[in-house]
This record gives sequence, C-alpha cells and structure tokens, in this order.
Amino acid sequence: MNSAYTIGIDYGTNSVRAIVVDCSDGRVLGTSVFDYPSGDHGVLLDAGDVHLARQNPADYIEGLRMSVAGALSAAGREAGFRRDRVIGIGVDTTGSTPLPVDARARPLALDPRWSKNLAAHAWLWKDHTSADEAARITEIAARHAPEYLAPIGGTYSSEWWWSKIWHCLNVAPDVFDAAESWVELADFIPALLAGVTRPRDVVRCVCAAGHKAMYSEVWGGLPSAAFLERLHPKLAALRSRLYDEAWPPGRPAGQLAPEWAETFGLPEGIAIAMGGFDAHYGAVGSGIQTGTFVKIVGTSTCDCAIAPVSDRIADIPGICGIVNGSIMPGYFGIEAGQSAVGDILKWWVETVCGGGESLHAELSAEASRLRPGQSGLLALDWNNGNRTILVDPRLTGLILGQTLHTTRAEIYRALIEATAFGARVIVERIREYGVAIDRVVCCGGIAEKNDVFMQIYADAIGQPMLIAGSPQAPALGAAVSAAVTAGADAGGYATWSEAQRRMTSLKEKQFTPDPDARAIYDELHGIYRELHDAFGGVRGARADLGTVMRRLLSVRQRAAASPAGARA
Amino acid sequence: MNSAYTIGIDYGTNSVRAIVVDCSDGRVLGTSVFDYPSGDHGVLLDAGDVHLARQNPADYIEGLRMSVAGALSAAGREAGFRRDRVIGIGVDTTGSTPLPVDARARPLALDPRWSKNLAAHAWLWKDHTSADEAARITEIAARHAPEYLAPIGGTYSSEWWWSKIWHCLNVAPDVFDAAESWVELADFIPALLAGVTRPRDVVRCVCAAGHKAMYSEVWGGLPSAAFLERLHPKLAALRSRLYDEAWPPGRPAGQLAPEWAETFGLPEGIAIAMGGFDAHYGAVGSGIQTGTFVKIVGTSTCDCAIAPVSDRIADIPGICGIVNGSIMPGYFGIEAGQSAVGDILKWWVETVCGGGESLHAELSAEASRLRPGQSGLLALDWNNGNRTILVDPRLTGLILGQTLHTTRAEIYRALIEATAFGARVIVERIREYGVAIDRVVCCGGIAEKNDVFMQIYADAIGQPMLIAGSPQAPALGAAVSAAVTAGADAGGYATWSEAQRRMTSLKEKQFTPDPDARAIYDELHGIYRELHDAFGGVRGARADLGTVMRRLLSVRQRAAASPAGARA
Repeated sequence: MNSAYTIGIDYGTNSVRAIVVDCSDGRVLGTSVFDYPSGDHGVLLDAGDVHLARQNPADYIEGLRMSVAGALSAAGREAGFRRDRVIGIGVDTTGSTPLPVDARARPLALDPRWSKNLAAHAWLWKDHTSADEAARITEIAARHAPEYLAPIGGTYSSEWWWSKIWHCLNVAPDVFDAAESWVELADFIPALLAGVTRPRDVVRCVCAAGHKAMYSEVWGGLPSAAFLERLHPKLAALRSRLYDEAWPPGRPAGQLAPEWAETFGLPEGIAIAMGGFDAHYGAVGSGIQTGTFVKIVGTSTCDCAIAPVSDRIADIPGICGIVNGSIMPGYFGIEAGQSAVGDILKWWVETVCGGGESLHAELSAEASRLRPGQSGLLALDWNNGNRTILVDPRLTGLILGQTLHTTRAEIYRALIEATAFGARVIVERIREYGVAIDRVVCCGGIAEKNDVFMQIYADAIGQPMLIAGSPQAPALGAAVSAAVTAGADAGGYATWSEAQRRMTSLKEKQFTPDPDARAIYDELHGIYRELHDAFGGVRGARADLGTVMRRLLSVRQRAAASPAGARA
Repeated sequence: MNSAYTIGIDYGTNSVRAIVVDCSDGRVLGTSVFDYPSGDHGVLLDAGDVHLARQNPADYIEGLRMSVAGALSAAGREAGFRRDRVIGIGVDTTGSTPLPVDARARPLALDPRWSKNLAAHAWLWKDHTSADEAARITEIAARHAPEYLAPIGGTYSSEWWWSKIWHCLNVAPDVFDAAESWVELADFIPALLAGVTRPRDVVRCVCAAGHKAMYSEVWGGLPSAAFLERLHPKLAALRSRLYDEAWPPGRPAGQLAPEWAETFGLPEGIAIAMGGFDAHYGAVGSGIQTGTFVKIVGTSTCDCAIAPVSDRIADIPGICGIVNGSIMPGYFGIEAGQSAVGDILKWWVETVCGGGESLHAELSAEASRLRPGQSGLLALDWNNGNRTILVDPRLTGLILGQTLHTTRAEIYRALIEATAFGARVIVERIREYGVAIDRVVCCGGIAEKNDVFMQIYADAIGQPMLIAGSPQAPALGAAVSAAVTAGADAGGYATWSEAQRRMTSLKEKQFTPDPDARAIYDELHGIYRELHDAFGGVRGARADLGTVMRRLLSVRQRAAASPAGARA
C-alpha cells in the first residue's frame, strides 16, 4: 500500500494548529500553529462586562490558510511525503462557538457594516453573557419540554447555542435580523473547505447539535417551533433557516473545494471529515474506548466517556450531555467538563503572584515537596463557574484554611487539588449512573509537563493517570476521523477501532495512586464535597461548616506528624 | 510651676520604644526604638510548630537600657530639658506575655541552664500552643466555676496566662518545676526598674490579672486552689507563689532603684507607674472616655472602651474582658480585639505577593480606586484565629468570590474589608449589651498612613474614624499614668481627666462615612455575618450559603452600575 496522510486542524481558544499525520502509524510529519491576531490572545473582550468573550472569524480563515500551509511545508521536509497522498482533512474546534452568517454562509463580522459589532463575531465557548437566557430556557423547558433537558444534565448552559443566539436577539436585534442563519465553528470550517455557499447546505455535526442545541433524533431534530416560540417568535422563525438533521463522524461533510485545493496544493475532492468539538476528537485521538475516561486538560477541561448504544444508559443529572454518535458512531458520547483548570493556575501565578513561566515551575516544584493535607487549605475550583455537575456559571472561587504562614506554593497546590476534587465529583457522578470508568487518560500540556498535578489527580481520584501519546490529541483525533472518512480504499481505515489502534498511543509514563495520599484525599474530598454542595446550592446539602476549619487543622496535624517523608 | 517630664516605655512585638514627654502638653522631647535582636524580628519560632511564639527576656532588659538611654539623650538636645525634672516612668507591654522567674525574680531564660529551652523564655501574647489547655480550662470552669468565665467573654483563650503556664507544665515540666513563680511582662519591667528581688514583691496590675488570669475581687483574687487542683495539683501549688492582690493604675508599682537611676542619670526614687497592657495605655493616650471606642491598630488590633463602675454592666459574651480598674480607676475596662489586622495585609503583600513597602503602597493606591462591592469578593479575617467575639484560635482565613480576573489589589481591599467587618461585629456586640459607643479613635501606623483602610472602616462601621494625636499612644498613655502616679505636687496631675486633657490630643484629619458606601457595606456585612456565624460554629447560625456567591455578584453588578465614580 502506498503511504497515505491526513491533516488534522485544531481550533483552540488562542490559536489554531494544523498537523500532517501518517495514516499508517499516526506519526506527525509537520505541524504549524497560528496565533489569532485579534483581541487579547485572540479573544475579543469588553472592559465593561467580564462575561463577554468573542472571536474574530477573520482569524479563523487566516489561521486555516497559515496553519495548513505551514504544516504541509514542514511535512515536505520529511522523506517520502507527497501532497498528492493526502487523503482527507479533519477539523476540531471549541464549542459551543456559534457565529451569525449571511445568505452566502459568510460570517457577518466579515462585512464592514458589522465588523465593529461584537455581537456579529463568533460567540466563544466561554462567553458567559447569556446567563439570564440560559436560566429562562431551563425554566421553560423544565415546564414544557423536560425531555429536552434530560440528556444534557438538566440545566441549559449560558455557554450554549440557544442562550447565545437568544442573547444576541435581546441585546443586538439588528445583528440577529441581519443573520440568515447561525453556524457552529465546528461546522463552519468544514463547510468553508468544502466551498459551501448556502447555510442550509452546511453539514451539521451531531456533537454540537446534540450537546449544545437540544437536537435529538428522538424528537425529530431541533426543539420544536412551538417550544422556540415560547422563547421568542424570531427564534421559532430562525428554526427553519438552521438544519433538519445532524450527523455523527464517519461520513463526509464535503469534498475539498477547488480553490482550497489550489491554495494548499492538495488533491481536489478529498474527504472533509465531519467537524467536531476539540474534546470529542481529543478523546478519539487519546484512544477512547468503553471504560476509558478521557480528560483534555487545558485552560478548562473537557471530559469524555463512551458507552455502546446497546447499553441503554440513564440520563445523568448535571452531566453536560449524552448524545448518540457525538464521539464515535455506535456509541453514546458522554461529555462533562470543568470551566477552569489551567486558567486557575495561570490566574494564581500570573495575575495574583505577578510571575511568568519560571514562577509556574518554581511553585510546582515547591508544591511537589508538600504532603497532601499539610497546608491545611481547601479550595473550590469555581473561578470561572462550575460546568459539571452544578451547571452554574455564577459560582465563584473560594479558598479557606489560610494562616499568616500560608505560602503561595501551598495555595497553588490547593488550587490543583480543588480541580482534582472537581474532577472526582464528575467521575463519581458518571459511575453512580452505571457507566464504568476503569482508566483515565489525560492529554494536554499540563498532563505532559506538570508531574505534581498528575500525581495529585491520581491520588485524589484514586485511579492511575495515563497520558495520551500525542501532545495534540484533538488534532490527531481529527486526522483519525479523516482517515476513517476517506476509507480503506483510499489508504485510510474501514473501522474506528482499527484506525485508533494504528494511529493513537499512550505514553509509557503513568502516575499511580499512593495509598497514604489517597486516604488523606478521601477525607479532604469529603470536606470539599460539603462545601461544594453548600455553596453550590444543592438541595438538601448538609454541611457541618462550624467544624470545617478545625477538621482541616486536624488533617494538617496528622499530615505533619505522618512518618512518610515529603514526596518527590 | 517648673517643667516636669515623664518617660513612657512601650514593649511591642518586635521592638521596645521609649519616649520622654513634657507633662504640661504631652509633647515628645525624645524617642528611641530598640529592635529585639533575637529570633525572627524578636520572636523565637519553632519550625515544627507554627503556633509557637516566644521572646528572649534578655532582649527586654537590653531594650530597656538602650531605649531609655536613647530617648533621654535625644531629649537632652531640646532646650530646657533636665533629667532631674523627670518625675516618673510608665511601662506598657504586650500581654498576656508571662515569663517564668526564679526565686530572685529573674527570668529563668537568663540562666544558662535554661537559655536553650524555649519554654523558659517569655510566652509572647500570640503564642497559640496552648489551645488544648484553653479548651480544658473553659470546659472545667463552665462546669465548676462559671463565674470565672462570665467577665472574660465565656471562653478562656490559648493566649492567656493559665493556658500557657499549664501548657508549660505539660510539655516542659522541668521548666515548670524550676520556676519559683511566673510574672507578666507588664509587671516584670516595673518590678525590674524598682529593684524587686522576690516574686511575691512584684506589684501586679489588675489589667493583666483581671483580663488574663481570671482574677477578681469578687471571688477574692485568683481562681481558688480547689479549682486549680482540677487542672493540675502543681497549678494549685503555684497559686500561693503568685499574688493575692492586683491593682489599677494610679498607685506606684515602686520607686526607681538606685542602680537604674545611676544608669540613666535620673533621680532615685521617682515613681514607677503600674505596668499595663499596650492597648489599655494606648486607650489612655488616645483620650479614652465614656462613649469612646479606641482601636489600637497594629499587626493585630486591641479595642478598648470604658464604663463608669456605677453603671452596672452585664457580662458580654465573647468580649475578652470587663475588669474593674483595668484601664483607669473608677471605670470598668472593656477589652476586645482582632487577632490579625496589619498582619493579614503583610501576609498578603509580602508572603503571597512577594512584595515590600512599595507594593503595600501600590496595592493601597489601587484599592482606593475600587468601589465598595465592586470586586465581588468577601473574606473572613481569621488567618490568626478569631479573638473577639468567637474566641477561637483554631479558625482560619477564607476568601470567596474570586473569578479569573480577580486582582491582587482587589483581594488586598477585601482583606481590609474583612477586618473592618470583624471590627463592626465587636462594636455591635458591645452596643447590644448597653455600652454606648459614639466615637471611634484609632491609633497606630496603619491609622496614620493608610487612608483607604480608614475610609473603609468609616464606611463599614458607619462611624467617623478619628485618629489619636500621638503616633505612640501606648507610650504616651504610660507617660500619662506616670504623671498621675507622681501626682500634682511633683509636677504631674491629681486626676486622669486633667492629665488626659493636657497631655493627649486628636488629629484634625478624620474619615467620615459615605452614605452610598455604607449601604453597600451594610449588605456585605450581612453576608460576612452569615459566613462568620456558619464557619465560626455559632449555635443556631442560619446561612443561605447556596446563594452567597450569586448575591455577591449582584452587589458587584450594582456597584459597577452605580453612577458614582471611583472614590479617591
């Protein structure tokens, strides 16, 4: 068989990355990253509203051009690579990141009439301006269409499709009226590559539709016009300008259009895979299978698990979504996530302590010399709200247990621990509902570089922490999807499992729970859970807050008295 | 009348300061500060126990010599000053700071046999090693002698006399056995100046005895031997080696001994005033009278009020003490305090943010540009426990409301606000029990230098904040006491009110509450109080924690929307 290659393109929060991958073994031949030039590291902000986060669609298009060209050019320096052996392209993106488009499927923001209007740009996943709309949608759905909420955890989020579009209608009705349709970034890029020029022709992925837009084949697609009418008549009218059907990965979103083929020097008509969210393709690129819990650890964290569609699984309260085919066809994709992980550490080290890379390294080295429980601190990891399992963007951070001797490294470690406890809450919730989790695979820079972070996670969750072989699991997953979409005849694969077996891997290094640390963290997790439920407003929460500080001091004394030395 | 002078000597946590004062108008002619050379800025620490804080008595004695000599030498450069017109010496100190002494009233720590043993040194006020003993004393007194607890707020503290002496007996019985007696630092220095050589001859001040050692004329002095026997037979045996009676200020603790007169070139036999705690003499030096609440704001804060003994006032739960004559004769002295105020800001700026003086100034300037409520943060000021009104050294700090945008200046301001809310809880508790407070006078470096701090206090407490005229109110109060003790015939005063009227003053600058800020702080104080009671373990506390974070966001949104500009 001739060698064959696919391209994976990963649209992150601050940059887009393209990789060229050898289908035979998943080896990356070329990679290129393009930092979005607009706003603050690619994010358009509003000084008057900390909840606002938008992106300039022009950055996406320039980023597509530059990153793919760069990756191909790098691959060209590898022996044997030929552009005419590229058989497909896959794309993953952040989400829900909807953008308003005109009748030719072009982003409104590219039109000079709208380019100054932040509402006409892409509404980045972490935009939290739509909290009121999200609350109303939850309320109305709970009353009139509870089935819509069941598979998405029971609460509609301000980060999602309908909240954002409705908020646009409320605060920028001119933009709403000017939009022919709205498109998820995950669908926009494949459609762009395929040369789609009508919004109704954009092929929509079920991962965005099912997890963010209350789409399900069970009720025939998007929420009914009658339901949308309850929100606003204009949303009901928009429904017919959106889509009727959404698809799992594996079928093509289109074929590479002649102008893009020419731009990149690639064969015209090669397969464009279905777009997908970064976390979902990251799970594919991390070798997800039944029983695997994949954590894409970045500024925030997305967690994925799958369960065969033949296992009828229950709706899981607080879990962002359970969608047939959203990760791989034939499986329910289960998605959860934490709104801030790397971002909390970055906040602490950079915004509060005023340091940079070297302080990250210093604090992480100091933190690694502390024993679990030794600082007497406990934190809640809610600086950016709580996505799972409380689904409340209005929650905020908390640190307690400080004395006059508490150091910045102790707080740094307490913040890592808080995110680990937050992760454990998610794992426990999924297990409670009958989905087995017997291994945890992490990917992302923190997983690869921050050993103290990974050890704390192993100890706090009580599971070995494995690391995805590729540092770019989402892009690799998109490339895997492209290889499956292109098919075995073209040099790709007939099945997902075969593609994953050949193209993905795990690192040898892994982190194993330490029994003593586990015992302390079990106790601290109990206290975390009390605070979590009390401040999270969980109905019937029972916390003995009057003893929390004393209990932490008691853990601290035992940790200090423990014969075990500090851990490396 | 010939001019007359007194000397005030103030033993602080890190240094001792002496001032030479003109009795006619309170003018300071000379001042000198001696930094204790031992330990960490004068505090002996134990790396294995963060609760331990001791001091080397040799520092006290060298400090006495150096500071008084320095102040006299500085005064000598002022026209008209003559050492032979010095008519008395007053001393104030931290407390409860007991030290074990031998049969000749010399500190054990000065004996080479004991100098390496931390238990033989002075047990600094903020030593918190004796929490278990304090809890036991509270428990036993509650059962067998509740009258002992009533005037000291209902809870015996780990910072106090009996807790510390008992802890010494428990952890260093050899030191306990070697001690003939124990002496408060406030009594030790006057006795040293008076040449006292037997522990039973040390004249004891009622301010230490009444506030810290459960002494009261009502039950005939110290706790009964029968009560002490319940703690430990050796404590009962110690009782007879301590004292039978304690005295208010106004009568002499002794006369200046010949060797010290010679050392300083002062007249032999001049009056040595009764020793007293820094806060109490600070209140005198700040012009305390009925209706005045004096706050000595430093690393921690001591608060004082007085009420005429003719007003029978009730015991006030959680208030450290109500003692007849402890501040001025004829008045109940009411003492309260916060375990950390300046220390919390120092912790934040220096330990966490890694800055120094310039960062203090920078954060305080930035904090002054923030509006009340604007940060969305709320903190508890318990990094060093809570002295009043919870009396629990095992409480710890808490910060909540953080987002990924929270700045260090916002947290700095939130920590100031937390201490202001803590101060308000104290004012409210004292008022609840019928003691009027109609003006607040602050003294200490923070009061003089940190305008944003003072404005926040005015707004959060809802009272104008006045500033004591002297930056060294405690030393000035000790000098006032010396002038009263010396008496009118010697060139001093016959009454306290006359001495205060002539020797103390207020600064013209004062801080007035802003109505808008007050309204926001009233709301935030309500939330503070919920957290305070919940985490403080107050019986029957009712907190709606599930909405706290959302309510803070709501305050924040209103603060941001308020038409008023940021305040200077």
